[in-house]
Amino acid sequence: MTVTEPIGIAVVGLGKIARDQHLPSIAANASFRLAATVSRNASLPDVPSFAGLEEALAAMPDVGAVALCVPPQVRFGMARAALEAGRDVLLEKPPGASVAEVMALDRLARDAGRVLYATWHSRHAAGVAPARDWLAGRRILGGRITWREDVRRWHPGQDWIWQAGGLGVFDPGINALSVLTAILPVEVFVGAAELEFPANRDTPIAARLTLRTTEGQAIEADFDWRQTGPQTWEIELETDAGPLLLTGGGAQAQAGGAVLAQAEALASEYDGIYAEFARLVAARESAVDLRPQLHVADAFMLGRRTQTDAFED
Amino acid sequence: MTVTEPIGIAVVGLGKIARDQHLPSIAANASFRLAATVSRNASLPDVPSFAGLEEALAAMPDVGAVALCVPPQVRFGMARAALEAGRDVLLEKPPGASVAEVMALDRLARDAGRVLYATWHSRHAAGVAPARDWLAGRRILGGRITWREDVRRWHPGQDWIWQAGGLGVFDPGINALSVLTAILPVEVFVGAAELEFPANRDTPIAARLTLRTTEGQAIEADFDWRQTGPQTWEIELETDAGPLLLTGGGAQAQAGGAVLAQAEALASEYDGIYAEFARLVAARESAVDLRPQLHVADAFMLGRRTQTDAFED
Repeated sequence: MTVTEPIGIAVVGLGKIARDQHLPSIAANASFRLAATVSRNASLPDVPSFAGLEEALAAMPDVGAVALCVPPQVRFGMARAALEAGRDVLLEKPPGASVAEVMALDRLARDAGRVLYATWHSRHAAGVAPARDWLAGRRILGGRITWREDVRRWHPGQDWIWQAGGLGVFDPGINALSVLTAILPVEVFVGAAELEFPANRDTPIAARLTLRTTEGQAIEADFDWRQTGPQTWEIELETDAGPLLLTGGGAQAQAGGAVLAQAEALASEYDGIYAEFARLVAARESAVDLRPQLHVADAFMLGRRTQTDAFED
Repeated sequence: MTVTEPIGIAVVGLGKIARDQHLPSIAANASFRLAATVSRNASLPDVPSFAGLEEALAAMPDVGAVALCVPPQVRFGMARAALEAGRDVLLEKPPGASVAEVMALDRLARDAGRVLYATWHSRHAAGVAPARDWLAGRRILGGRITWREDVRRWHPGQDWIWQAGGLGVFDPGINALSVLTAILPVEVFVGAAELEFPANRDTPIAARLTLRTTEGQAIEADFDWRQTGPQTWEIELETDAGPLLLTGGGAQAQAGGAVLAQAEALASEYDGIYAEFARLVAARESAVDLRPQLHVADAFMLGRRTQTDAFED
């Protein structure tokens, strides 16, 4: 085993997700060293801080990787700049405001010989890998996704999620889709959708989707941002070997009368992300799976829109 | 040169596009023989006709290919059935109600060893290939797409275009996007969009898009279905070697002070489709370029929606 230098990483955007998740997981991973932060209005003690990414890249040649934790609407330009400056790039979810821009980034990364990692944190929940392994080779007969949470609790004052490009309730819903596409042994697509837009917002507060497997079985999804009290993040799949149930956003899994995983909701998902990023950087491999966001775009394209009560934060 | 039997083809859906375009182009192409039609309520004299596709496939083993001219909302099941029955498949545009279902079809076709051809008729307009050749290696500095037509003239009584999944003004707009993506030497993505929905319809009657090249240049698109009088289908691109102009939906092209192509609008686009399909079938190659519809899905996902006057057909 060779001892290698930790990867100097710059974290761009010091909002809630960076502080709650990225910084602790970087601190806990010996493969990384927090080398810089980039933010217009925030900084951390004892860490070089910059107002703009290009400035940071120019000043810090030892920054080998960049984690983009800014809203998706501004991500493309930063990712391109980092790739062109020869750095590897990690993207918070959703990876971009459009699917096509991430496909373009993927090609840019390949041309530049850099690593691009489009992360889906929920895929690192404890029950996801065991659920995928249990489902391998089984037939899917149907299913139900219930992803209901309180937007005021998880996205306090985050205006960008309500602005065009911010995805609205699909911001959590895409987590469910990222888990579903990771565990299913077949492909799915959105067959029908209904989206509820608050009168005063550009993105939906609730959505119901009918996903179809290529064999025609239906998986019904219920995404809602108006749930107070206990939060619900569940995926239930019927198979020819009985039901599989994921709860806690994928942290707990049971199937065939057995417990496959039992962890706390949200525990160490970002530790999983940074472990995987270290592996990808070492292997010089990109990982860009666009299916979760493609299903969201499809739902917007073919979904029926309804208007509902105005939402005030 | 070997004399080969013409390919027996079944046309599914006998609506306006099948009668105006597909049937004449099949009749004019010696590589094809119209073997059957499938329609719940229409038939042609002297051509075997069936109410359902599976019935036609079972009864007509000499049907080697199927052209799906039904609305996109019902296309997936038919395409899957045809591929699984060992037939090659041609899809009218848009290839499906969702992008993901066409990706799934593409994999099914590959697994089944069949040819899948997602057609974009506007790409066969006379000016498209010369425009692509002229643009090769040039830098795009900006551009403008104007695609304004009268929905009452082109889609009389076609309810499906107004129903969720029917795309609305993107049904013609996707033609512009199919041309743009065919001729540009760089990739583009939707950076911003505004969509106008009639109060009584599920799909937009007008849309304005800002497309961005990966280098950051803007191409502004104006799609509108409310234009009476002369119809406008134009793409103008600024380059480092001067402007390129496509008019008549791509039938006419000029650049660098020279006329590159000069044909009638809509002339023989479908002849081009069937010539290409014959080539693909002979070569056992699929052609599935999903970028035009991906840009539409992205526009729906990140676009701002506004409501406009109710539209009555």
